[in-house]
Amino acid sequence: MTTVAAYAAPAAKAPLERTTIERRAVGEYDVLIDIKFAGICHSDIHQARDGWAEGIFPMVPGHEIAGVVTEAGPGVTKFAVGDRVGVGCMVDSCRECDNCKAGLEQYCVKGNTGTYNAVDKNGEPTYGGYSSHIVVDENYTLRIPDGLALDEAAPLLCAGITTYSPLKHWNAGPGKKVAVLGMGGLGHMGVKIAHGLGAEVTVLSQSLRKQEDGLKLGADHYYATSDPKTFEELAGTFDIILSTVSAPLDFGAYLSLLKTDGALVNVGAPEEPISVNLFSLIGGRKSLSGSGIGGIQETQEMLDFCAEHGLGAEIELIAASEINEAYERVLNSDVRYRFVIDAATI
Amino acid sequence: MTTVAAYAAPAAKAPLERTTIERRAVGEYDVLIDIKFAGICHSDIHQARDGWAEGIFPMVPGHEIAGVVTEAGPGVTKFAVGDRVGVGCMVDSCRECDNCKAGLEQYCVKGNTGTYNAVDKNGEPTYGGYSSHIVVDENYTLRIPDGLALDEAAPLLCAGITTYSPLKHWNAGPGKKVAVLGMGGLGHMGVKIAHGLGAEVTVLSQSLRKQEDGLKLGADHYYATSDPKTFEELAGTFDIILSTVSAPLDFGAYLSLLKTDGALVNVGAPEEPISVNLFSLIGGRKSLSGSGIGGIQETQEMLDFCAEHGLGAEIELIAASEINEAYERVLNSDVRYRFVIDAATI
Repeated sequence: MTTVAAYAAPAAKAPLERTTIERRAVGEYDVLIDIKFAGICHSDIHQARDGWAEGIFPMVPGHEIAGVVTEAGPGVTKFAVGDRVGVGCMVDSCRECDNCKAGLEQYCVKGNTGTYNAVDKNGEPTYGGYSSHIVVDENYTLRIPDGLALDEAAPLLCAGITTYSPLKHWNAGPGKKVAVLGMGGLGHMGVKIAHGLGAEVTVLSQSLRKQEDGLKLGADHYYATSDPKTFEELAGTFDIILSTVSAPLDFGAYLSLLKTDGALVNVGAPEEPISVNLFSLIGGRKSLSGSGIGGIQETQEMLDFCAEHGLGAEIELIAASEINEAYERVLNSDVRYRFVIDAATI
Repeated sequence: MTTVAAYAAPAAKAPLERTTIERRAVGEYDVLIDIKFAGICHSDIHQARDGWAEGIFPMVPGHEIAGVVTEAGPGVTKFAVGDRVGVGCMVDSCRECDNCKAGLEQYCVKGNTGTYNAVDKNGEPTYGGYSSHIVVDENYTLRIPDGLALDEAAPLLCAGITTYSPLKHWNAGPGKKVAVLGMGGLGHMGVKIAHGLGAEVTVLSQSLRKQEDGLKLGADHYYATSDPKTFEELAGTFDIILSTVSAPLDFGAYLSLLKTDGALVNVGAPEEPISVNLFSLIGGRKSLSGSGIGGIQETQEMLDFCAEHGLGAEIELIAASEINEAYERVLNSDVRYRFVIDAATI
C-alpha cells in the first residue's frame, strides 16, 4: 500500500478537495503509473453528484488518465518503466465471458470494474485519475503513441473511444454522411474522428456559436438545431447520427434526419426515460441505438489511429485547485473542449 | 372502368357492408386479377376505424390478396392469363428514388402507394382486396408458386413479408437466437419463417394458451411474459427480438433479454409514443429498431422461400358477411391465426 495525493468528493454533491488515498501494492501483472494528466468528463460530475446512482464516497473521479510507468510487476510483459501509458473507464473485467473474450470488455456480462466509483475483485473501492499515481493491471493499460502529447491524449481514453467505437461499428467512412449531435467534449472528438475516418461530417449544435471551431476540426457542415429550417433541409440525410448530448431531445425530429437504414446512436443519455414513436423507426428501417466506451484492444486501435492522424483533444489545462470551478463551467457548456488537470498540481 | 363487388366501410368506425366500386381499365402494364382470397390484417381495422390517421372513405380494406390473372395489358411481360398471383401492401411507388432502385419500394422517399386508403398517381383513391377484382401494375404483382395454396398464401403478402424482411435483414439463421413477441397473425408467421431460416426460436406470449400451436409451428421454446421469471431466466439471451405486438410494452424489460449487439425490431407498434431509458441501449450496444413490410423483389423471394419450406399461413376461412364479426374477434386475439375472406362470397 502506498499513500498518494488525490482530489476527492468526500460526499455526494460536496466540492472536491485535496486528500490522500491508498493505492494497492504493485502486483505481479500491475504497473504503477505516475499520472501526468487527467481529463474531466461530464460523467465525473454525474457520479460525484449522485446523478446516476448512489456513489461510493469519498470518490476520486477521473477516467481519462495519461502518465508514465514508474514500476512494473514481475509478470508484466507489455510495458516497461518509462513507457507513456493511459487508463480509461475500466481497470478490470471477468476476462472469461464471451464479451471479454471477444474484446468487448466494456460489455462484460459480469460487469467491468470502473476506474473509480466501483469495487474491485478484492472488495476495495477504486479511485480514479484525479491523483498523483495509480496502480493498474497491464491488461487494462493502454500505450500512448509518441505522436500524441500526453495532455491532449488523456481525453481520448473516454471521449475518444466513446466516439470512435460506434463510428467504427456503424461503418462511418468514405461515402457515409455522419452527423455529430452536440459540440462538447465528446462531440468535438466525434467530429475529428469521423472526419479522420473519411466520412462527410455535419455538426448539429444548439447554436452556431462554435461553428468556426467545428469547421476547423474537420466538419464539412454546421447547423443550429434551434433553427426549425435545419430539420426541413436535412430530412433523410444521414447514415449515422452520433448523439453526444445528455439533455432530453425530440427523438422523432432527429430520426427524421436519417436515411433508410440509418442509426441514431446515443453515447450521451438523459437520466430520465425518453419518449419516441415507433413509427419513426418503422418508416425507413431505422435504429435507435446506444454504445458505451470501447474494448481494450479497440481503445489501443483508437489511440494509434489518433496518433497517425494527429487527433489530440482540444483542451484547457487547469490546476487541481480549479476542479470545482471547472465542473460549473462544464455544466454551463463553457469549455473548449475538455478540461485537463495537470496532475503535478494535485 | 369496370364495376366490381366489394366490402367497404362507408365511414370511419362504421361496419363494413357490401357495395360496388369502380376499377380502372386495364392499362398497358396492368393485370386484372380475379381475387380468390383476401386476408384480414389488424391494420385493416386500425385504418377502417381511423386509429392511425384520417382515412379515405368509403374504404375497401385488404392488402393480403391472392387470385388469378384474367386479363393482361399489351405491355405486360411478367404474367399471363391464368397465372396465380398476389398483391401486398403497395401497388405503386416513384420507381426513381434510391430506395425504389434498390428494391426498397416500401421506403420510397416519395411514399409508396398503399393498396387501399391511398391516392394513386392519377389522383384516384385505391381500394383493397375485400373485392372481387383488382387492377394492378405488373411490377407490383407477385407470383404465387404452385406449392402454396392460394388461401394460405394470401396472408403472406403482409404477415409473411413483414416478418421475413426484418428476420433476413437482421440475419436470423443458424446459430442465432430469435424471440418472436406476440403469437398472432404476424407472430405465427414470424415463428414459421425464423424456424425455416434455421434460427433457434422462442415465442414470448402473454400466456401459454397457444403454446402447443407455437411448438407445432416451429418454436423451440415458449414463455409467458405474464410470468416475471421469464425475464430473469431469459436475460441476455437473444440476438433478435421481433415484436409483432401493438400494445404498449415495458421496453426496458424486453431490451434486457437481448445479448450484446442485439436488436429489438418492431413490426407492430402502439399508436402512442413509447418510453425507454437510453441506458438500456448503451449497456450492450443494443438497438431499438423498426421495419415495414418489404420490397417487391424481396416479397417474391419470401413467397418462393415459403413455398419451398411449405410455410402457408394458418387460417380461418370466412364468408364476406362475417367480416365485422371477424374484426371483433381479431381485437380479442381470438383467431388462429389469420382470417381469410373467401372472395367468392363478396
